[in-house]
Amino acid sequence: MQLNQFARLTKSQSEQITELQRIHLLPKDFTQLPFQVLAQDIFQRLFPEAHSQSTQSGQLSLLQATTELNLTAYLETIDTSFDQVVFYNVALQLLGFEMTTDFELDQPTAFMAATKLPFIDQAAFDQTTFIEALYLLLTTRSQTGLLYLDQLANRGFFADWQSDQPQFLIFNGKVQPVFDTSHLIREVVYVESSLDTDQDGQRDLLETTIFRPRETEAGLKIPALYTASPYYKGINDVDADLHNVDTTIATKPVQQPSLADLTQTPTTAPLPQPRAVNGTSMTTELNATDDSNYSLNDYFLARGFANVYAGGIGTRGSDGVRTCSSPEETASTTAIIEWLAGNRRAFTNRTDGIEIKAWWCNHQVAMTGKSYLGTLATAAATTGVEGLKTIVAEAAISSWYDYYRENGLVVAPIDCQGEDADVLAKLCQTRQKDAADHALSGTFFADQLKALQEGQDRITGNYNAFWAARNYRDNLANLNCDVILVHGLNDWNVKLQNAGALWDLLRDQPVNKKLFLHQGEHIYMNNIQSIDFTDMMNLWFTYQLLGIENQAVTKLPAVTIQDNAQEATWTTQADWLAPNNPTTTFWLNEQTLSTNATENAPLTTFKDDGVAAFRAQKISTTAWQDALIADQSSFTGNRLRFLGFPLTEPLIIDGRIQFRTRVAVNTERGLLSVLVIDYGQFNRLGTTPAVLAAKGQQLGYQWRYDDLKEFKLNRPSNYQVITKGHINLQNRHNSYQTDAVTPNEFYDITLDLQPTHYDLTAGHQLGLLVYATDMGMTIREEQAFVYQVDLAASQLIVPHLND
Amino acid sequence: MQLNQFARLTKSQSEQITELQRIHLLPKDFTQLPFQVLAQDIFQRLFPEAHSQSTQSGQLSLLQATTELNLTAYLETIDTSFDQVVFYNVALQLLGFEMTTDFELDQPTAFMAATKLPFIDQAAFDQTTFIEALYLLLTTRSQTGLLYLDQLANRGFFADWQSDQPQFLIFNGKVQPVFDTSHLIREVVYVESSLDTDQDGQRDLLETTIFRPRETEAGLKIPALYTASPYYKGINDVDADLHNVDTTIATKPVQQPSLADLTQTPTTAPLPQPRAVNGTSMTTELNATDDSNYSLNDYFLARGFANVYAGGIGTRGSDGVRTCSSPEETASTTAIIEWLAGNRRAFTNRTDGIEIKAWWCNHQVAMTGKSYLGTLATAAATTGVEGLKTIVAEAAISSWYDYYRENGLVVAPIDCQGEDADVLAKLCQTRQKDAADHALSGTFFADQLKALQEGQDRITGNYNAFWAARNYRDNLANLNCDVILVHGLNDWNVKLQNAGALWDLLRDQPVNKKLFLHQGEHIYMNNIQSIDFTDMMNLWFTYQLLGIENQAVTKLPAVTIQDNAQEATWTTQADWLAPNNPTTTFWLNEQTLSTNATENAPLTTFKDDGVAAFRAQKISTTAWQDALIADQSSFTGNRLRFLGFPLTEPLIIDGRIQFRTRVAVNTERGLLSVLVIDYGQFNRLGTTPAVLAAKGQQLGYQWRYDDLKEFKLNRPSNYQVITKGHINLQNRHNSYQTDAVTPNEFYDITLDLQPTHYDLTAGHQLGLLVYATDMGMTIREEQAFVYQVDLAASQLIVPHLND
Repeated sequence: MQLNQFARLTKSQSEQITELQRIHLLPKDFTQLPFQVLAQDIFQRLFPEAHSQSTQSGQLSLLQATTELNLTAYLETIDTSFDQVVFYNVALQLLGFEMTTDFELDQPTAFMAATKLPFIDQAAFDQTTFIEALYLLLTTRSQTGLLYLDQLANRGFFADWQSDQPQFLIFNGKVQPVFDTSHLIREVVYVESSLDTDQDGQRDLLETTIFRPRETEAGLKIPALYTASPYYKGINDVDADLHNVDTTIATKPVQQPSLADLTQTPTTAPLPQPRAVNGTSMTTELNATDDSNYSLNDYFLARGFANVYAGGIGTRGSDGVRTCSSPEETASTTAIIEWLAGNRRAFTNRTDGIEIKAWWCNHQVAMTGKSYLGTLATAAATTGVEGLKTIVAEAAISSWYDYYRENGLVVAPIDCQGEDADVLAKLCQTRQKDAADHALSGTFFADQLKALQEGQDRITGNYNAFWAARNYRDNLANLNCDVILVHGLNDWNVKLQNAGALWDLLRDQPVNKKLFLHQGEHIYMNNIQSIDFTDMMNLWFTYQLLGIENQAVTKLPAVTIQDNAQEATWTTQADWLAPNNPTTTFWLNEQTLSTNATENAPLTTFKDDGVAAFRAQKISTTAWQDALIADQSSFTGNRLRFLGFPLTEPLIIDGRIQFRTRVAVNTERGLLSVLVIDYGQFNRLGTTPAVLAAKGQQLGYQWRYDDLKEFKLNRPSNYQVITKGHINLQNRHNSYQTDAVTPNEFYDITLDLQPTHYDLTAGHQLGLLVYATDMGMTIREEQAFVYQVDLAASQLIVPHLND
Repeated sequence: MQLNQFARLTKSQSEQITELQRIHLLPKDFTQLPFQVLAQDIFQRLFPEAHSQSTQSGQLSLLQATTELNLTAYLETIDTSFDQVVFYNVALQLLGFEMTTDFELDQPTAFMAATKLPFIDQAAFDQTTFIEALYLLLTTRSQTGLLYLDQLANRGFFADWQSDQPQFLIFNGKVQPVFDTSHLIREVVYVESSLDTDQDGQRDLLETTIFRPRETEAGLKIPALYTASPYYKGINDVDADLHNVDTTIATKPVQQPSLADLTQTPTTAPLPQPRAVNGTSMTTELNATDDSNYSLNDYFLARGFANVYAGGIGTRGSDGVRTCSSPEETASTTAIIEWLAGNRRAFTNRTDGIEIKAWWCNHQVAMTGKSYLGTLATAAATTGVEGLKTIVAEAAISSWYDYYRENGLVVAPIDCQGEDADVLAKLCQTRQKDAADHALSGTFFADQLKALQEGQDRITGNYNAFWAARNYRDNLANLNCDVILVHGLNDWNVKLQNAGALWDLLRDQPVNKKLFLHQGEHIYMNNIQSIDFTDMMNLWFTYQLLGIENQAVTKLPAVTIQDNAQEATWTTQADWLAPNNPTTTFWLNEQTLSTNATENAPLTTFKDDGVAAFRAQKISTTAWQDALIADQSSFTGNRLRFLGFPLTEPLIIDGRIQFRTRVAVNTERGLLSVLVIDYGQFNRLGTTPAVLAAKGQQLGYQWRYDDLKEFKLNRPSNYQVITKGHINLQNRHNSYQTDAVTPNEFYDITLDLQPTHYDLTAGHQLGLLVYATDMGMTIREEQAFVYQVDLAASQLIVPHLND
């Protein structure tokens, strides 16, 4: 176990005293008190659940101080000095660690050092040092991953904290859970957008759900964490709408448009007038019946930040139609921010024209969310909308071409074969859940779905105006808020190019930006034990939204990466995909990869005829990939495999591995797929974190829970995927221009694989697989073709960190 | 989807009106109102989240009534008649079903019939029928599995219900969620037991956690749902304490004790005096910081039933030591009931002698919980303790020999190889989590652990005095409360003999008893969509604990069994394992099973030498069992396999399949394991329910959630285990007497396999596997032995339901 910590601030002694007094842990007159009395008093205050002297004393007696004495007894013995070993014996127990199981009674700091817990390295504490150690303890991570002060808060330390004039409480630069979550206001308003996407002659109203502490009713202005979630009101079943992937890849006509040609004609329909305002109100008319669904938001709700959820156009309760992340969806996302910032109108209901302001909001907004939710945060950020101070975009799409397409191919997100922009639009057009609303808008939606289907163009798979309109990176110049990106290094749903290409552009954008890369697939990372991500977000939002100068920008590392070779290990670096990273070139020969240029490497061939066997075996795409990668299987003939020697030195890959080759195919079209593999029987980190404790992280006093999780080393496995790539041979120059393929003619191909960071440790072997049909991601054409690869003209160019 | 429903009561028209008025849905003066006004009024009341006429009306407008009209518009058209199709069009939408996706607009009742939803079969409703239909709708199950009235409650229908004199609200015989869960009282008391299991000279105090609605503070007396959970305060890591199963099975000396010999000497240590009482209090001194952990309890907490959790002796916060379900653990379980019933003392803290009564309790107690928790409920019930009205024992152990042993063998629960009574005791001795408490009691616990290890006797695996003391079935004559048993038909953790043998004894016990058998493994069943288990429990507890005469005993079927061959299908029968079930005998021949007696069936042999291969392959025990059952694998030589012909008629197995054989082994000891298999490539029901909707079932207004789950048909599989059994050849007469085995001498063996209920449909093949070492459950001895089986003397006798 390693409890890495990045968000703890170092405070001066006087600041520590002020803060300890602010939370009523250190009495105002502490200097007047004998050390013994003070220490007894303080330890008793660490048991907010105990309401009598006897019970508090009983709790202290459960803590072992020395081999002989419990804490109550030890406290009787102290005069001017508190033994450091005793302090940390007790501290570890307070933090939830167990004697013998976790640490040895007389060696607490050995355990603390190994676990990365901070301590004061001094044999005995006088009263001053004791107070310092107490402050440090409160800001130390406990066994649950939560800070000790958060644990105290969860046990009622801040219950009844608020007075008539509620306020935020800051400790160690972070906002504390002093708000009453048992009386939240849960309400719905209708934000009026400047859109009429369903063309009903009225501006689209956007249902917006707000959860805010009732302390706002007493006048406190609070920031908003806004999650734009098209899934908030549920999703539609689209199984029947998935596209058939058991089809052919088209032979495309030669086309050479310029990038500038790829623009969509803007809609010319005139925008209806805004609704008339017939009155104003400070109270809503509809209670929210759906609940929040991101534990990080819940955590901040207990700390006084409103949670705002909106699905946007076409979702249940709102007007309009889904268009899969078009500029209109972006505008329907930013409309909510404009309302929160005081720059747009909302109504209490759909009909009466009663305006309601976000009067409780301090006009400071951050966006959170994963996947489509993070995508809309990215979309909003690239508009430069006023009021949006920062986004935390997790596993977010930055260009939808990089989600559903790749280099002129239809390439599905993993486990999503047949999905496309139109399917996703239908999945989210949840207005259809209200039958009478569907009766009004269903036909119009069905019609515009056809336009989506045409625009997305599953025939060519080319980048075009449709996809250009959904490439937020093109708008990056507008971005003026600070950005946090989070992505899983094993995410094959939203592939890493989405984070990578955005990061490349952010590098020179004059905003603060931070990046977190974890070892998960398509998941959130706020409940991972080994890193204080939530605390970092607290520091970040406290700075961004409350304006507290807390060093957030300097405390958070630029790039934080979880290591894939060991548990609970997070490293920081100045950049990711740094342009000046060195590269190592691997040359191909029959079945080998070598850093020495190969002489007389042959031509070699493989036959792409695995689809029939894949279908006959009725196996999953995961099982197929296992078989393809394995030494021998019924799919061995469908791929070329090249293995490097076991590494003698670790190789920390960082960047986009590039595969260069010369290839021919015996028909007029074709594709190449490439897998880079870490081979060798080793224990590897699982890509799905294990639940260490269900409901192991409480988010506030008598409030919600999240599971506590960690990535654990698995039983020995034979391989792990490092990265992948796919390319249509007709798109050998780029994704929007199409060239011809002449049967059996060789073409130079340069394929940048998905960007990554991978710690390939000594003993492991780098592996390369070259094949065509990818059962899990590409179209699965049954007709068999033969590919020739000129190994003499092939290299794998691997960027890595300096040694 | 099938929404089976057992807990809906049929009420007279006047009762319906009274109840509808009681919940303020039907105005007192409804007979004075025109039908149209009444209908509009009632539909608006179905949107408790809407606080204005406009918003309510907006909600009604989202419901499609006819092809042309939404509900608002339709209501304008009615006079004396409400169209039935319109009513159910709307009703289905209110219940959460979607037009087109779930049902066709003009055919609501077709969907309702298929889904088992009740409706009034009459073309048009007058006002009287409308009210009847409304009542029926409120008691109809919605898409979430919850009753529609529960859905309304979750949206605030009963918010602010309670007056100064809080009370329970009953509707359709079931208690309603009218209690304020945002102000629960969460408190801890210390019940003084009549035990001193840690022999410290003081009676063991038992920490008891109570969650109760604050309405009790106004004088309402409420029942208690008590869950005795040794896991409540966490568990200890016992990986290092597991016994080595890679050892030999002992050759046991011949022993022929009588059952009566198997009694433990009672402890002679004198019981210390009770603590002195120095005062009384009505308030506790310690808030509970741990939370509840069973969603069924949470559901009832919102309905006004206290939740009580206690870990018992040796668990964190309590005195004493764990003894793995000894009579002392039973006494520490019933002590809590005695306090709740007013028959035992509790204190506010450990030291001051301040007594506190369960003054808020109506002295009516039910016990709930699964596995060890349900086991302790069973243990408590077999004492006849006063105050305990009923238990709902899920996947409960009724005799610990049937958990850790079988027919003279050490047989582990699945996935628990190496666990035993001592390991479980250590797992639950969570006092050691408080280091100073561990310092006081750890040595004593370690000593008594040795006694457990001796008593459990892993050498012989025989039934003995230790196990007899942990056989609650021996005490069944004391049982005087009503009993509900729940068990998974695929539970290989707590095997079905635990439920079966108890059920056999309950059959003639003069109490009410009900049995539920689901298709899961070791799980709870209260969140399965296809059955209204929670509603049945509501009916049951409302009757048992509030004394409401609601036909609970007659409404709940005696035996409710989930079918394994189809989704969402639950059948009822009068009994399970009925002694008069007919049997079919299958005869063995080389590789076949046949209902015709076999002539000249041969002697056949198998070699029990699979352990080395199992270990070398490093596979899981599940993978080993798959390989053993498969047509061909490296373990094929380790078993005999017999296959029946594909069935032409379904065979509904119900009872204990018996295997009779004559067997010899080439050494002085041996074991037989038997698997009965359903063979044939078919879609089979998964044994782990799929999550249909995370947090899909809300348990009360602004209260907690459970996931909504259902057992779904999987992709085609080749087999499913029907039942298993294991026997030590030295225990061929019974589990407590040991006979000699002479090498190569044949012995008659009769082995009753675990009781079950299995729907073997036409086309499937009955299969029988005979082998020795069971990698997942028995000791894994590497030395190889050869077994001879006389097929001519072998039969499989299968009890089944009458055709």
